[in-house]
Amino acid sequence: MVNQEYKKLGNSPNVIRELFMYGLEQKKKLGAEHVFDFTLGNPSIPAPEEIKTAIVTMLNTEDPIKIHGYSLSAGDPVAREAVAADLSSRFGMDVKPGEIFLTCGAAPALISVIKALMTENGSEIMVLAPFFMEYRPFIESNGGKCVVVPPDTRDFSRIDTKAVESLISERTQGVIVNSPNNPTGAVYPESELKALAAVLERKSAEFGHPIYIIADEPYRELVYDDVEVPFIPLIYKNTVVCYSYSKSLSLPGERIGYVYVPSFAEDSEELFNAVAGAARITGHICAPTIIQKVIAACASKRPDLKAYDENRRLLYENLRDIGYECVKPQGAFYLFVKAPNGDANVFSQKAKLGHNLLVVPSDAFECPGYLRVSYCVSKDTIINSIPAFRAMMNEIKG
Amino acid sequence: MVNQEYKKLGNSPNVIRELFMYGLEQKKKLGAEHVFDFTLGNPSIPAPEEIKTAIVTMLNTEDPIKIHGYSLSAGDPVAREAVAADLSSRFGMDVKPGEIFLTCGAAPALISVIKALMTENGSEIMVLAPFFMEYRPFIESNGGKCVVVPPDTRDFSRIDTKAVESLISERTQGVIVNSPNNPTGAVYPESELKALAAVLERKSAEFGHPIYIIADEPYRELVYDDVEVPFIPLIYKNTVVCYSYSKSLSLPGERIGYVYVPSFAEDSEELFNAVAGAARITGHICAPTIIQKVIAACASKRPDLKAYDENRRLLYENLRDIGYECVKPQGAFYLFVKAPNGDANVFSQKAKLGHNLLVVPSDAFECPGYLRVSYCVSKDTIINSIPAFRAMMNEIKG
Repeated sequence: MVNQEYKKLGNSPNVIRELFMYGLEQKKKLGAEHVFDFTLGNPSIPAPEEIKTAIVTMLNTEDPIKIHGYSLSAGDPVAREAVAADLSSRFGMDVKPGEIFLTCGAAPALISVIKALMTENGSEIMVLAPFFMEYRPFIESNGGKCVVVPPDTRDFSRIDTKAVESLISERTQGVIVNSPNNPTGAVYPESELKALAAVLERKSAEFGHPIYIIADEPYRELVYDDVEVPFIPLIYKNTVVCYSYSKSLSLPGERIGYVYVPSFAEDSEELFNAVAGAARITGHICAPTIIQKVIAACASKRPDLKAYDENRRLLYENLRDIGYECVKPQGAFYLFVKAPNGDANVFSQKAKLGHNLLVVPSDAFECPGYLRVSYCVSKDTIINSIPAFRAMMNEIKG
Repeated sequence: MVNQEYKKLGNSPNVIRELFMYGLEQKKKLGAEHVFDFTLGNPSIPAPEEIKTAIVTMLNTEDPIKIHGYSLSAGDPVAREAVAADLSSRFGMDVKPGEIFLTCGAAPALISVIKALMTENGSEIMVLAPFFMEYRPFIESNGGKCVVVPPDTRDFSRIDTKAVESLISERTQGVIVNSPNNPTGAVYPESELKALAAVLERKSAEFGHPIYIIADEPYRELVYDDVEVPFIPLIYKNTVVCYSYSKSLSLPGERIGYVYVPSFAEDSEELFNAVAGAARITGHICAPTIIQKVIAACASKRPDLKAYDENRRLLYENLRDIGYECVKPQGAFYLFVKAPNGDANVFSQKAKLGHNLLVVPSDAFECPGYLRVSYCVSKDTIINSIPAFRAMMNEIKG
């Protein structure tokens, strides 16, 4: 007699994972160069050399008992200091180490914040479609209701604030904003965030409690064409930031990130403690020390985005020339392409079986009719995949 | 408006942490050699040299994208294979990698199992006092009822199976067994575990569903005098093992452990999936890859216990000579000493303020009247602390 909800979650077929596993098998059969796998958001540029240097230096010079010892629950003081100093210098703020709670990546960060905002009244967390597919289980299986704001498909960098306003209830505790966005690659400009902030301020006042923005920012560093990603706490004070170094330092497997609860946010001390309590009862306190110490050394390091940017241009321009409709993304490493036949599932299936071309249908992101194409791959994969994309278009256009 | 329960958990004073922090301050004031800190269960022997070698070799020879990339949710196949092979060879079993779910340490392992066993009927998890203080919040804040079996204070290596039987209800889903035990250092012998198994088998049959033993085994490798720690799945088939390498490889900060769900346990596939689902919605899938790869290389490595064993004998013999009552522990790195005045809180407070002697009163472990003395410290700390223990005894005896 086990928990049936968790059993399903642990056993549910994940479309991305299934495509990826299919790709692995096909690569074994046909050779890697004949399979065009655009499924995963796994960084394709190596971690900066400084990561290796930091680890080896640490192992060679420091006491192993200290390197591998428990950290304090909220994290190693030096790592928290480094994160705070980096945020302060970038955004002209005075972030304190005590406002930072280190976590095993963005997922535990988000989950701790979601749990911290769950009250007995039945809390709602709002998400903006399309959105990262794990938001829904993170919210629903931690006691909340997931309220979806429909996408503005004319322009994914716009937020439908009218819909936000009409969907907010007195139970709304937070709105997850993911910018640069997975799966669209869009960056919400300051004007959109200010409009959102205005709605939330008005509604917070109406209901007499803060409605937080939960800024999920693993892609913050991955932007192109000198686009600025607004730092939301500077626009809306009741913002909690969830961050991960997975993408910026190409360390996805190392599970290191943080929650930043600005002291100027309402009830910030209560919220920080609730995040800590939620982390405690999900077993997330004390992120791995060796990785925390890497962050202590490398928090201000930025990625070299040249390879991603080249991929982005190459894929975008080729797909547009073939006739695919897609907005040129400003951030992350995803292209969000309109399915030419209108049915992304059919396209994905035909592309897979007919061309070993693996792209993710967007139903999982709750915005059907699109294909997520992750361009964190080798340049060769992109070049070699173009005939497959062209063949698919020809088949569909008949 | 934040979650009040988590807020309290994130902010609740922890007696161990408070004593430890006091010790740090006193060390700054007086010098480390004048403070006798026996509070934490933080390994005092360094990680084996093989850990460092494994990491440096990996960094020097492997592709950083693979080293730091996402692993599969349940863990790196090579690491799961290494864990399964180690268990198989030690216990004469045929453990399969698919029965192992790697986790960020024992806490997430335990929590995932507890959550996996929560049903709509209101699940109960039984614990044997004295017990690790986090069991209660882990159970209660994840939706369960914590049912405490009173200690057998005549002999902590005995389980009061009559009490177990009378406290089991149809909602009982599991019993946590922690051997070697924190805080007593006791190891439950095979006879006690068989008696427990008999009760659970009878009651499982009566209620028509399995009652699992949740074997929490972070101290499995830390035993002395050639004592054998029975491997519970060999005694009771419906056992799920939660393990951590924190103590055995002196890697407490690195947060690496696993859940082992034997395929011969009832509903094992369902249970494994429910553990995976619980891990997913608490954000625990894909433990840090660099540490998983360390385990892949070092799963069969055992600690050199000489230093702990020396500490154990030295402290035990000296305390006994002074007149303290204590059973010589067979495992872990704790001495569980009867408070000579009967009140462990008074003793702990007086020892702290009068002698900078820091020992943990046992109320937190739900078995009042004892002091947990963690002997994972330097030998000098033990030698230098003896006059303080003697002075405390003289003060109390008047």
